[in-house]
Amino acid sequence: MSTSGNGSLLVVSAHAGDFVWRAGGAIALAAERGERATVVCLSFGERGESAKAWREGRTLDEIKAIRREEAEKAAGTLGAEIRFLDAGDYPLVESQELVDRLVRVYRELAPTVVLTHTLADPYNGDHPAAARMALQARVLAQAIGYDAPGEPLGAPPVFFFEPHQPEQCDFRPDVLLDISGVFDRKRKAMECLPAQQHMWDYYTDLAKRRGVQLKRNAGPNLGLPHNTMAEAFVRLYPQVTGELT
Amino acid sequence: MSTSGNGSLLVVSAHAGDFVWRAGGAIALAAERGERATVVCLSFGERGESAKAWREGRTLDEIKAIRREEAEKAAGTLGAEIRFLDAGDYPLVESQELVDRLVRVYRELAPTVVLTHTLADPYNGDHPAAARMALQARVLAQAIGYDAPGEPLGAPPVFFFEPHQPEQCDFRPDVLLDISGVFDRKRKAMECLPAQQHMWDYYTDLAKRRGVQLKRNAGPNLGLPHNTMAEAFVRLYPQVTGELT
Amino acid sequence: MSTSGNGSLLVVSAHAGDFVWRAGGAIALAAERGERATVVCLSFGERGESAKAWREGRTLDEIKAIRREEAEKAAGTLGAEIRFLDAGDYPLVESQELVDRLVRVYRELAPTVVLTHTLADPYNGDHPAAARMALQARVLAQAIGYDAPGEPLGAPPVFFFEPHQPEQCDFRPDVLLDISGVFDRKRKAMECLPAQQHMWDYYTDLAKRRGVQLKRNAGPNLGLPHNTMAEAFVRLYPQVTGELT
Amino acid sequence: MSTSGNGSLLVVSAHAGDFVWRAGGAIALAAERGERATVVCLSFGERGESAKAWREGRTLDEIKAIRREEAEKAAGTLGAEIRFLDAGDYPLVESQELVDRLVRVYRELAPTVVLTHTLADPYNGDHPAAARMALQARVLAQAIGYDAPGEPLGAPPVFFFEPHQPEQCDFRPDVLLDISGVFDRKRKAMECLPAQQHMWDYYTDLAKRRGVQLKRNAGPNLGLPHNTMAEAFVRLYPQVTGELT
Amino acid sequence: MSTSGNGSLLVVSAHAGDFVWRAGGAIALAAERGERATVVCLSFGERGESAKAWREGRTLDEIKAIRREEAEKAAGTLGAEIRFLDAGDYPLVESQELVDRLVRVYRELAPTVVLTHTLADPYNGDHPAAARMALQARVLAQAIGYDAPGEPLGAPPVFFFEPHQPEQCDFRPDVLLDISGVFDRKRKAMECLPAQQHMWDYYTDLAKRRGVQLKRNAGPNLGLPHNTMAEAFVRLYPQVTGELT
Amino acid sequence: MSTSGNGSLLVVSAHAGDFVWRAGGAIALAAERGERATVVCLSFGERGESAKAWREGRTLDEIKAIRREEAEKAAGTLGAEIRFLDAGDYPLVESQELVDRLVRVYRELAPTVVLTHTLADPYNGDHPAAARMALQARVLAQAIGYDAPGEPLGAPPVFFFEPHQPEQCDFRPDVLLDISGVFDRKRKAMECLPAQQHMWDYYTDLAKRRGVQLKRNAGPNLGLPHNTMAEAFVRLYPQVTGELT
Repeated sequence: MSTSGNGSLLVVSAHAGDFVWRAGGAIALAAERGERATVVCLSFGERGESAKAWREGRTLDEIKAIRREEAEKAAGTLGAEIRFLDAGDYPLVESQELVDRLVRVYRELAPTVVLTHTLADPYNGDHPAAARMALQARVLAQAIGYDAPGEPLGAPPVFFFEPHQPEQCDFRPDVLLDISGVFDRKRKAMECLPAQQHMWDYYTDLAKRRGVQLKRNAGPNLGLPHNTMAEAFVRLYPQVTGELT
Repeated sequence: MSTSGNGSLLVVSAHAGDFVWRAGGAIALAAERGERATVVCLSFGERGESAKAWREGRTLDEIKAIRREEAEKAAGTLGAEIRFLDAGDYPLVESQELVDRLVRVYRELAPTVVLTHTLADPYNGDHPAAARMALQARVLAQAIGYDAPGEPLGAPPVFFFEPHQPEQCDFRPDVLLDISGVFDRKRKAMECLPAQQHMWDYYTDLAKRRGVQLKRNAGPNLGLPHNTMAEAFVRLYPQVTGELT
Repeated sequence: MSTSGNGSLLVVSAHAGDFVWRAGGAIALAAERGERATVVCLSFGERGESAKAWREGRTLDEIKAIRREEAEKAAGTLGAEIRFLDAGDYPLVESQELVDRLVRVYRELAPTVVLTHTLADPYNGDHPAAARMALQARVLAQAIGYDAPGEPLGAPPVFFFEPHQPEQCDFRPDVLLDISGVFDRKRKAMECLPAQQHMWDYYTDLAKRRGVQLKRNAGPNLGLPHNTMAEAFVRLYPQVTGELT
Repeated sequence: MSTSGNGSLLVVSAHAGDFVWRAGGAIALAAERGERATVVCLSFGERGESAKAWREGRTLDEIKAIRREEAEKAAGTLGAEIRFLDAGDYPLVESQELVDRLVRVYRELAPTVVLTHTLADPYNGDHPAAARMALQARVLAQAIGYDAPGEPLGAPPVFFFEPHQPEQCDFRPDVLLDISGVFDRKRKAMECLPAQQHMWDYYTDLAKRRGVQLKRNAGPNLGLPHNTMAEAFVRLYPQVTGELT
Repeated sequence: MSTSGNGSLLVVSAHAGDFVWRAGGAIALAAERGERATVVCLSFGERGESAKAWREGRTLDEIKAIRREEAEKAAGTLGAEIRFLDAGDYPLVESQELVDRLVRVYRELAPTVVLTHTLADPYNGDHPAAARMALQARVLAQAIGYDAPGEPLGAPPVFFFEPHQPEQCDFRPDVLLDISGVFDRKRKAMECLPAQQHMWDYYTDLAKRRGVQLKRNAGPNLGLPHNTMAEAFVRLYPQVTGELT
Repeated sequence: MSTSGNGSLLVVSAHAGDFVWRAGGAIALAAERGERATVVCLSFGERGESAKAWREGRTLDEIKAIRREEAEKAAGTLGAEIRFLDAGDYPLVESQELVDRLVRVYRELAPTVVLTHTLADPYNGDHPAAARMALQARVLAQAIGYDAPGEPLGAPPVFFFEPHQPEQCDFRPDVLLDISGVFDRKRKAMECLPAQQHMWDYYTDLAKRRGVQLKRNAGPNLGLPHNTMAEAFVRLYPQVTGELT
C-alpha cells in the first residue's frame, strides 16, 4: 500500500507537453524520492498542439523534432525518462498494435503508480483515446496469458491528472497533492516549452488555487505555509490502505 | 496529512449498534495505534432497531437500557469510549439543539478523522439525518465565531461507512481499509449484540468480500494473505497527501 | 411478489388533482382488479393550483370546497376512496405531526403498492415535500416500536408517478404501464376537473406518447393495438420477482 | 409482457464461465419453466481468466479445450445449450464481423429475454466490449432491412448481470431474482469449474446476501424462507407491464 | 456571441429524415433569418428506418433513391441545402475516412452553430456514432495542423437535438427554442415523408408539449400565445454571453 | 426572452460579501445597462465569515456593523441596492417566516433574473440553505393564491453563481459571462472588503481563468481581447430563446 522507496511511476500522455502542465509536480516528487519516473508520449502533439509552428510555416518533421527536444528537456528537468511512440495525433487513432506496445511498457517498467488523462474531454478527443489505451493495456499486462515478455503486472493505482477545463471533463478532485517542495522544478520544466509561454503563469495560478483548496481541506491546524502549491487528481480505483487519514 | 500517533477518531452514529457492524474495524485499528476513539450514538435505536425486544413485550426504558449496555460492551471491546445523546429514533428528528451538542463534542475531542452514515438511505431516514447533523456540526465547529467552548476545529476528513444496502445508498467505495489484524476484535464486539446474531456472519462475510476486493485493487504482488478482511468507506472531501499511492 | 387479487393501493398526493393526471390509469387498473385504492391528498392545492378561482375572487374556503368536490368525483370515477389531510399548500410544510398521520394511514390500509411524487421538482416544492413525508412515514410504519395502532407495515414497493416536466425532475421511466383498457375512465376522471380543461388533451397526448414508447419497448411481436395508452413510473426500490420479464 | 411458457433466454458472455457465476440461477429458472436457454460465449477466457492453467504450462489450445469442456458441463447442469464463437480474449476485439454473427444468433433464437455484462467494468475491458456488441446486434436484428436470415427480432428486454465489483461498475440492482428453488443446481454448475474453487463459496455468499436484500425489499409479510437466495440484475430498458407490483 | 445575420447552421444527421422531426424548426428559423443552413446525412437510413419499403419488396437502391428524394424535398421546404455521404446504416460504421469527409465539410462551411444527435441512444446505435464523428470532426477542423483545405474552424456551439425517447437518452433540455413562427413550414416538411405519416402528429404533439414547457419557463408575463410551439435542445459546451437572460 | 432595458436583477446571498466575489461582474453589467440590481443578504456572515474580527476581539454587534458598512460600499460601487435580513449565520436556519420575507421581496421587485448559491456545498451549509429558500420563495411568489402584497411573479431564470470549490459543489458551468468591460468596477468593489485582501487576487485570477475558457468556447474568430475576464454560472431551468447561439 506504500511505494516504499523503490516505486516506479508511469505517465501515459497523448501529446508531448501534457505531462508537464498536469503532472509535473507528481513526477518531480517521485524523482526526489528516488523512484523511477517514465513518461510515454503517444504522439508529439504535432498537429493539434503546435499551432504557432504551423503558422510559422514549419514542416511536420521539423515540428516533431522541436516538440521532442522540448519535451526531453522538460522531462529531464523533472527527473524523468521519456519515450515517444510517435503514433500521430489529431486524431490519435486507437489500435491494438498501439495497446500492445503499451502492454510491453507496463511489463518492462512494472509501474507502482500510473497517471493518465481523463476519460472525458469534449475539447480534445486524443486525451480520452490515450486514457482508454492506457487503461486497456494495464489490464492486459496483468494477465499471465497475454503474450508479451516479462512478468504479469500487479495492480498499480491509476490517477487521472487535471484537464484544461476540469468541470467540462467531469473532473472532481479526489486527491490534492502537495507539490510545494518541487514547484520550482515544475516551473523550470514549464519554461522548457517556450511556444506556450502563456501557460507558465496559467499553471502557476492553478497550482496556487489547488494549494488553497489543499489547505482548506487539510485544516488550518497543520501549519501549511501560505504559498502551498498543489496538483489535483482523480482516482479510478478505490484506495487501499491500512489507516484512514 | 497523517494522524501521526496522537489522532482522535470520532464516530457519529444514529443508533447504538451501527458503529460495530460498519466501522468496528476502523475503530479497533485506531485504538491499537494508541489513538483516542469516541463513538457518539444519537439514539439507542430503541424504536427502529429493536424489533425482537418489542416483540418480547419490553418497555421503552428497558429496551434503551439493554441497548446501552450492549453498545458499551461492544465499544469497550473495540477500545473506544461511547456517549449517548438519547435524542430518540424513528424518527431521529433534526434540531439545532442537537447539532449544537455535536458542535461541543467536536470542540472537546478535536477529532482528526470523522466517520458517519451516508447521506442517502431509502431504508432508514435516521441514517441520513445523523449524517447531515454530523456534517453541519463539523462546519460550525470550525468557525471561531460559533459560540461554544474550546478552540475552532481543524478540517478532519470525513468518511461514510458502509450501509446495509450499499448500491441503493449510492455507496461506491473510495477506500478499502485492511482490518485483518483486528478482525477478531471486531467479531468479539459483534458478539456483544446477541439480539442480532444473524448479523455476525453477515458482516463476517462482508469483510471477506471487501477483503477480496482489497486484494484485487492492491495487486497480487503485495503478498496479502488469503483471508484478508476489509471495511469499505467513501470520502466526502478530497484526500490531502504528499505522495500518490 | 404479486398483489394477487387482494392488493391495496395507496396514493400520496400533495394536492387534490395530481393523482388524476399522473396516476389515474394505475388507480383505475387496481380498482378493476378488485383491489382497494386510496388517495390521500395532503392539501387541496388551494393556493398553488387554483389560479383561476383566485382570479374569480373566490375565498379560501370556497376554493377548498370546490377542489374537494371535484377531487371526490374524480376519485369516485376511478374507483378509489379519497381522504384530505388539509395540511395547507404553497408551501406544504413538513412536520412530524403530519408524518405521524401518514403512518397511521399506512398502518390502517396496509398498502401493497405506494405511489407518490418525485423527490425532485424545481417547479413545485410541495411535490418533493409530499414525497419525503410519504417515504418517511412508510419506513416508520414498518417499525414495531413506532407507537401507532395496527400491525407493522410490510415493504410495499414505491413508484414515483410522472411530473409535469419529467426531464427537469430527473424522471427517467423504469416502468411503462399499459392503461389502454381503462383510459376512458381516466379521461372521464380528468373531465371532473373543469378548471384545468387544457390538461385533458395534454394528458391524453402524454398517454399516447408513453403508449408509443411502451410498444417500442415491448416489441412489435406482442401485437399491441395502435392506440396503446400508458403511464410512466420510476421505482424507488429494486423489483422483487421470480421471473425476468 | 410475459414470456408465457415458450420463452427463449439468450445469455451473451465474454468468456466461458461468466454465465455460471452471474446468471446461473436465472438460466436454471428459465430451463425449469421449460424455456429454451442458450449461452453464447464470445471467447473461452483462455488468456485472461485461466491464470492457473498458464502457470501449469498448458498451451493455448489445451486451455481452450479445458475451458470448453468445463463450460459445456456447467451449461448442461443448468439446462442450457452453449455455443462458442472463439473470438479471442484479452482483448476481445470488437468487429462488425463478430456483431454480424451475433445478429444471426438473435434472428435464429428469437430470444424473449437477453442477459449480458454491464457497460462499465474498469477491471476487465472484455466485459463492456461483449455488452456493446450484444446490444448493437440486438438493435440490428430488429431491422427488416438488415441482411441476415430469419425474421426481424422483437424487442426483448435486456438485463445486465452482476459484475464482480458491482459498485465500481455502476451496478445498482433494479431487479432481485429469487433463485432459492434452483440454487442447488447453480452450485453444482459452479462445481463444474474446478480451477476457480474459491469462487464457489464466494458466489454462494453473494446469493445469500442478495437474498437478504430480496427479503428486505419484499417485506416480512410475504413469508419468504430464512435462506432465500437471489441474483441481482440491472434493466437497460423500461419494464413493460400491465400491473404495478 | 451572436450569429449576427450571416450565420451558417450545420446539421449532422445519421439518417435522412432525422433532421426534419428533431430540428426542422431550428433549421427553418435560421433560413428565415437569411442564414445558410446545411444538412449532412451520413446515410439514407436505408436499412434501419425504411421498414415499410422493405416490406413492400423494394431493392436497396430503390429505397435509397426514395429516401434521397423525400429528404431533398423536406430540406428544400425548410430552406436548407442537403448532402448525402452515403456511408451506410445499421450499422453506421465509424471510420477515419468518414470523419475526414466531415472535417472538410466543416472547413468549407465554417458553421457558426452545429446540431447533431445525442451521445447516448440505447434504441439506435447509429445516432451516437454520428454524434461522435460530428464532434471529433469539429475538433480536428479547429487545428491548423490538420491537413485539409480551408481555414481552421472557430468554436461553433454544439446542440444535441431531441431523440425519440428522451429520458432513456439522458436528454434533459437546456434550451427551449420558440418555433411558433415557422411551425407551419416544419409541418409541411414532415409531410414530405409520407412513409412515416404517424410521425406527423406525434411531432406536432411534441412541439405543443415543448411549447407548454417554454411558456412555463418563460413566465406568463411575456404574453406568449396559447399555441406556442417549441423544440428542445441540449448544449454540449457552456454558453458564451454578454448578458444573463 | 430578453430583459430589454428595464430588467431587474435580484441576488440572494447567504452572507454579506458573497455577492461581490461571485457575481460582482453580473451585477455591474446589469447596472451599466440601466437595470435595477438588488442584493439581499440573509445574514452579515458575522459568525462564519469574520474570523479576523473575532480574533481581534470584536463583539457580535461590532462585527455586524463592520460587515454591513463594507457590503454597502461594495454594492454601491457595483451600482446595486442592498438589503439585510439579519437572519443569523452559522447556521443560517431555514424558516417559513424568512421564506415569506423573501416572497415579499420577489413580489416587490419583480426580478427578471435571479442569482443565488448552489444547492450543494459541503464546506458551508448556509449557502445551500440560502439557495433553497430563494428557490422556494420564487415558486411561492408565482402563485396568485399566496397571501402577500403585489402581483404574482413571472418565471425569472435562476443562475447559481460560482462557489469557492466548484467541483466539490457539482458546479459545472453552463454559462460564461463576459465581464471584461466592468472588471475594474468589480475589482474596486472587492477592495471595499479589506479583511479578505487575499481574495482580491484570488478572484482576479479566477476571472482570468474563466475568461480563457470563455475565449476557448467562443472561438478564436470572434476577436476577443487577450485579457478577457469572465464569471461562470449554472442555469437551474432551461433557457428560453428564439435563436440558437
